[in-house]
Parts: sequence; structure tokens; C-alpha cells
Amino acid sequence: MEGQSKGSFNVMEESERNGKGRCGSMVGTCDLVLRVLAFVLTLVAAVVIGADKQTAIVPFKLVESMPPLYVPVAAKWHYLSAFVYFVGANAIACAYATLSLLFSLGNRRKGMESLISVFDTLMVALLFSSNGAAIAVGLLGLQGNLHLHWNKVCNVFGKFCDQVAASLFISLLGSITFLLLLLLPHVFRLKQTT
Amino acid sequence: MEGQSKGSFNVMEESERNGKGRCGSMVGTCDLVLRVLAFVLTLVAAVVIGADKQTAIVPFKLVESMPPLYVPVAAKWHYLSAFVYFVGANAIACAYATLSLLFSLGNRRKGMESLISVFDTLMVALLFSSNGAAIAVGLLGLQGNLHLHWNKVCNVFGKFCDQVAASLFISLLGSITFLLLLLLPHVFRLKQTT
Repeated sequence: MEGQSKGSFNVMEESERNGKGRCGSMVGTCDLVLRVLAFVLTLVAAVVIGADKQTAIVPFKLVESMPPLYVPVAAKWHYLSAFVYFVGANAIACAYATLSLLFSLGNRRKGMESLISVFDTLMVALLFSSNGAAIAVGLLGLQGNLHLHWNKVCNVFGKFCDQVAASLFISLLGSITFLLLLLLPHVFRLKQTT
Repeated sequence: MEGQSKGSFNVMEESERNGKGRCGSMVGTCDLVLRVLAFVLTLVAAVVIGADKQTAIVPFKLVESMPPLYVPVAAKWHYLSAFVYFVGANAIACAYATLSLLFSLGNRRKGMESLISVFDTLMVALLFSSNGAAIAVGLLGLQGNLHLHWNKVCNVFGKFCDQVAASLFISLLGSITFLLLLLLPHVFRLKQTT
């Protein structure tokens, strides 16, 4: 009887261990896929906004009573510090995604796993702050602000703004990918406890 | 000999368990302190910017040849959507810090710990994005942007901007507190492996 109980306990333990092993390997696979995705998305986001540039012909009045002069005006991403920070953050996150991918593909020791988790967390903070900054400034460019007399610029630089919006969307997906890298172990642990 | 080896193994295991226990209780204490700090900082940040308001007398020219009219102009935090998002994010983080503090003080099951970690991660993303947005807009208010013809406003609304800066600084500390809540277990694990 005791032997039977011990035997069934061993079987349960074994199946639990197998379950944990399967779960662990699933987390490992998801982790790798997410790191590849994070690399691609942050790279594309940085390149899309980094290559963004538009020149538009804008009417410019020197004297009120004279007809306006038409002057070519350029819009470049580095005119706004929020976009400079955004490009820098995406570039750093992209480089880190490559490094962490290489370490994840190699033999991961417990210490290395913790170190990667620390840097994943820092990347989430960095990317979300840069997305917040770029989206806030992008919205001001799109809508302007009546109270501050800041005119919208997207009615003049439509193509430039579209490209910024695309880059912001891609970077947001990249940030969510890094967020998922942090959430994944907790979600699997939650699934195991329920 | 075998008994001695088993004995020393048990002593090592016991001391390791004790070490882990001490570490666990230290992490628990730090966790509680950080949650109280996060609650206080996010609350103060939201209140400081929420109570921010300044009226300044600004010269306003209706016709170029006439002397300017002096008009009272008000600056309020809700004139900028980035600040609205900032206040909302800090209020949500403050409410969550209270809830998570209550749950942490209660008996924490493994499932609850994972759930709290998931929400801590979401709070880091929320707070850092709102800080990024508010800092980007705050910098535009302080420096303006020559390329976009967005004038600086902090030369007129100095007190308002100082209060915004104080709130941003406090909220940044709150965000770092939430970040430390995520980093703490990894840092302790790293310390254990080295």
C-alpha cells in the first residue's frame, strides 16, 4: 500500500516535472521568438524615422501689404529632441535585443538569466518613455495647441508625419514585445497555479 | 565518513535555506517600503501638477500700429493632453500602489505574487510613457522650437513651469521606485549566484 502510494507520488512528481519542463521549453521558445521580433521592430522603427525628411514650399510674409514669398522649408526628425531620444532608445533596444538573443541562444546560467531580466526591465522603461515623448510631440504636430499658440505642422508636412506615425506604431509594437518578455514567466507561473 | 559527509551536506543545505529565508524576508521588507514610497511619490506628483495654475498679464497686439492690449492669460495643466495623461497615469499608479500594498501585507500566495508582478510591470510601462510624454512637452514649453515656430512659454508662466518640473521630478522618482520593485528579486538572485 505504502509502495503503491510512493509509486503514484513518484508518477505525479515525474509528470509535474515533465509539465514544468514542457512549460520551461515553451517559455524558452517564446522568449527567443519575442527577442527576434523586438530586434526587427526596433530596427525598423529607428530606420523609418531616421530616413524621414520632407521639404515643402511654405508661403512666408515679410511685409503685411506685400504678396507672400514661397520658401522651401525642410522637416527633419532631429529638429525635435523627443525624436532624437526616440531614435536613440530604439537603436539601444535593437542592439540589446541582438546581444540578449545571442546570450539566450548560448548556455544560459541562472546568473545570466537574472542579468538579462534586469536589462529587459530597463529596456521597457527606456522604450516606453521614448514612445511617450515621441507620441506627445507627434500629437502636438498633428493637432497643435490653441492655448499655447503652437500651430499644427502635419497639414504642411503630411508625408513626414505619416512616416513618423508608422515609426511610432512599429516602436510601440517593439515596446510591447519587450513588455511580453517580462510578463511571460509570470503568466506561465499564473497558469501553473490555476 | 558517509555520515559526516551527509551531516555537513545537511548543515550546508540548512544554512543555504536560512540564507534564502533571510534574503526572502529582506526582499519582502524592501518590497513593502518601495510600495509605500511609490504610493506617496505618485500621489504627490499628481497633486502638485493637478493644483498647478497661473494667470499672467500678456501684451496682445490687435493692430500693428496701435499700442498692445494687456490681457490676463491662464495656464492650466489640462490644456495639454500630455499632462492629462501624466496625471491619469500617476493617479492609476497611486491607486494600484495602495491595493498592492494591502495584498502584500496580507498572506501572499504564489499566484497572487505573479499577478502583482504582472501589474508592477504594467505600471512601469504606464508611468515611464507618461513621464516621457510630460517631459517632452515640458521641454518644448521651456525651450520652444525654432524650426516649428513654437514659442517657449516658461518665460511668461515661470511659477507654473517650476511646479510642473517639481511634479515631473517626483513622478520620475515614483517610476524608478516601481522599476526597483521589478529589479529587486533579480538583483537578489544575482547576488546569491555570485
